[in-house]
Formats: sequence, structure tokens, C-alpha cells
Amino acid sequence: MTTFDSERFLKVAEAAADVAGAVIRPLFRSRLAVDDKSDDSPVTIADRTAERALRAVIAERLPDHGILGEEFGHERPEASWCWVLDPIDGTRAFVTGRPSFGTLIALLHEGRPVLGVIDQPMTGERWIGVSGAATRYRGPWGDERAQTRPCPHLDAAELSCTSPEMLAAAPSAHWPSLQGATRRTTWGGDCYTYGLLALGHVDVVAECGMKIWDWAALVPVVEGAGGRITDWSGAPLSAQGDGSVLAVGDPALLAPATALLSRG
Amino acid sequence: MTTFDSERFLKVAEAAADVAGAVIRPLFRSRLAVDDKSDDSPVTIADRTAERALRAVIAERLPDHGILGEEFGHERPEASWCWVLDPIDGTRAFVTGRPSFGTLIALLHEGRPVLGVIDQPMTGERWIGVSGAATRYRGPWGDERAQTRPCPHLDAAELSCTSPEMLAAAPSAHWPSLQGATRRTTWGGDCYTYGLLALGHVDVVAECGMKIWDWAALVPVVEGAGGRITDWSGAPLSAQGDGSVLAVGDPALLAPATALLSRG
Repeated sequence: MTTFDSERFLKVAEAAADVAGAVIRPLFRSRLAVDDKSDDSPVTIADRTAERALRAVIAERLPDHGILGEEFGHERPEASWCWVLDPIDGTRAFVTGRPSFGTLIALLHEGRPVLGVIDQPMTGERWIGVSGAATRYRGPWGDERAQTRPCPHLDAAELSCTSPEMLAAAPSAHWPSLQGATRRTTWGGDCYTYGLLALGHVDVVAECGMKIWDWAALVPVVEGAGGRITDWSGAPLSAQGDGSVLAVGDPALLAPATALLSRG
Repeated sequence: MTTFDSERFLKVAEAAADVAGAVIRPLFRSRLAVDDKSDDSPVTIADRTAERALRAVIAERLPDHGILGEEFGHERPEASWCWVLDPIDGTRAFVTGRPSFGTLIALLHEGRPVLGVIDQPMTGERWIGVSGAATRYRGPWGDERAQTRPCPHLDAAELSCTSPEMLAAAPSAHWPSLQGATRRTTWGGDCYTYGLLALGHVDVVAECGMKIWDWAALVPVVEGAGGRITDWSGAPLSAQGDGSVLAVGDPALLAPATALLSRG
């Protein structure tokens, strides 16, 4: 195993995000054909071209690393370092002209996310999470350490979820119990919501039907900002999990949120 | 009655939007106190200050016009020209750090919306609708005539709605029938979604619990882009209505959408 050279690997991740953004920006609101994939989720030439560009940048600089992406499968699955890519997280948002979609880039070591980038090509925002370090945020509205906010009680918490439809894949029917215990709910947002949690504007995100490319980059971003991210039972996220994701800004919310999601 | 001097009134509307944006931008993501109003909707000092600034600009330039705003009631209710203001449409989005909220400015003549501005202070986008004229869109991603897209059949339509919670105020229980007939649903967005419909990226928006300041500015924007906007029964929006709003980009969608919303 090579050691975790976070500075070098982060440069690769940022270069890849820059390239993906350059691919995606001219295609935003350009009336692309939208195909439906086998899981009924939409995909466009922007998703495919951006993932090819991400793979090209990573493979050129780190040819012995593995790459797993939403659109084109797994290269070098035996590698101990593996990049996990979602070129456009929030393709529904992208195809309806919303700038809230994002590009997700994660680096896993032996299956554990050690680096994550949430990049928003249209708003110019970027979150950078590195295992064991403070999360950084850069964008038109700030350049700062990202930190979650204190919110020790659910009744003061802002809850967020991308869509009620995704709850059909939930491991329990108790999401409404969590919603009922929180102050307010906002809908939509995909990966952007986890960035807002890392900045202390959202307190709880509870979603499901998530694949590894949907959550891998979020783990270092949320944890480096002081939050916690697990499945609905409080267990670490894994490729073999049930696809549920629970993120809390204040770690004190983890126990009450998992209790409600498990038992209602 | 004064005649409809759209050029002069539009200058007032744009000056007011500029001032509201200048009030709001420094307060974005600034951790304001959030109060709950009697209808349980959130409000902040940003909503109140922006509405005061909007009122100041309009009253200085058009002192005989009426003004109705979400936060501070009705001035000169006897006036035949009345400005209708929502300083922050999407306060839930604003307080969770999402740039999708907007400022809505409408001018009504004898109760009928003749001018509407949707302004997005954070993304720098602005839609301008004037009764009988083509809707304009300006922003970082374009400066163009806004036009809805052809979409004659519901099964190809992108549906949007801000939140499932707002459907509790629906005049019928048939929103899911409309959803089932469309291609895809996206959630969140408030007034931004109607702007995306005017640009041809969303085909149907069906919402409810809407007050006059939530919809008045949308009417000239949507109609000037080639769309239609009514209540769920297909009747014109009015202050005495049931709060339901249906917008379609392609006028051919109005009949099938109202049929589903009325009868399931």
C-alpha cells in the first residue's frame, strides 16, 4: 500500500472536478435528450461525458488506482485505492435547469472514504473533506472552514430530503416520525443539502435508495465539519448496506434520530 | 385611471428588485433568528427589511399606487393600481442556505396582474413579464426571450412542486393522479420553478396554499412565455380563489391536467 498522500490526491480530485465542471457548464439548460436507465433514473450525455473526463484525469495521474463510477462501472477492482464518482448527482435537477446538482468525487482506501469533494459547477461552490482534517468550503459566498452548528434537540432541527418518492426504498416506514419530531422540512437538493449541513444551515438529512457514489464523497465532508453520517440504524455506511443515509450536524442528534427511524 | 405606462412601471419594479437584492444578499447564510408566523411559516429580519425597502422605492416613485405585501399588509387599498410584494418567496429555502428563493414583485390593475418580476438575488437571474409582451430572462446563464417548450402530452412532462406538505391545502385529493400521468417529478424550488417553466425546462407546476403575493408576479411571466396559469379547475387566479395554482408550459396540457386534478 502507498501511504495516504492527501495533498497529492486532493490535487487530483480538484483537477478532476475542474474538468467535469468545464464539461457540464456549457450543457446546462441546453435541452439534452434524457434517457431513462434500468432503475428509471434519468441520464444525459452530460453525465456520460463528465464521467469519462473524470476518469481520464484520474487514470492519467494515478494509473494504479481503481475507479468506480455511476455510468461506466469498475476499473481495477482489485486496487486498494479506489475513486468513486458521480458526475452529476441530481440529474433530475440538472435536466430541469436547477443549479443545485453537483459532481461527487471520493477516494476510498480499502473501502473506507478518506477524501471527498462536493462540487457545484453552476454556483461555483466546492466542499473538500479529508479524513482527519477540517472540511473546507469555497464559493462566491465564502471561503472558510465548514462547520456544522450546534442543535442538540430534534425539535429545533431543520430536516431535509430530496424527494418523498425515494422513501419508497426505506428500510423502515418511520421517516414521518422523524419529520414530526423536527422543526421544519425542506425538499430537493441532492448532495447540495449535505453541503448545507456541513455549513450549519441544515441539521438532519435522512434519505434512502442511495448507491455508494451517492454517499462516499459526503462522508469526509460531513465528518470533517463536525457531523456524523451513518445508515438509518446508526451503522457506518458500506457498499453492502441497505442504501439508507442519515446525516446529522450535531452528533447529539444521532441517537434520537436513529431511534425514531428504527422504532417510530 | 392612468394608462399602463409599462416602461415607467417596469423601471420602478426593477429598481425595487435591485434594492431588495442588496438588502438580502448580505443576510444570506448569516444565521438569522427565524420566527414562526401564525400560519406556521417562517420569517426573518431579511423578509421584513426587504419588504420595507421595496415599499420605500415604490412609494417614492408612485405615491398614489397601492401596495400589498406579505409582511406589512395593504396601503391605499382603494387605488386602482396595486403593487403586490413577496420579499422572500421561499423563506424555508432562504433559512436553510439555498439560493433558490426569490423576490416577487407584481403590479395589478383593478385586480389583474399586468407586470411581474421574479428576481433571484443569489444567482443573479431575473424574469420580467409584462401583459401582452414577451417575457424576458436575464442572468449569468442567458439574456433572452423566455419561452416555454412544446410538450403536448402529460406522459412526457416534467412536473414540479415545492413540497408534499403544501398539498394538505389542496382543493382535491387528485394531485397523485396528475403525478402518475407525468414523466418525472422534482421537489423544492418555490417561484424559481415557474421561471424554469417559462424557460422550457419544466412543463407543469401544481401547488396549493398560495396567497396572492405568491402567484401575482408569476402570471405575466408565465403567460408572456407562452404558458398558462390558472387554479386547479382552470379558472383565472384571483384573490378570492382557493389558493391552488396550476401552471403549464404548453397550453395543450391545461385540459388534461385540470381534468386529472378535478376528477382523478
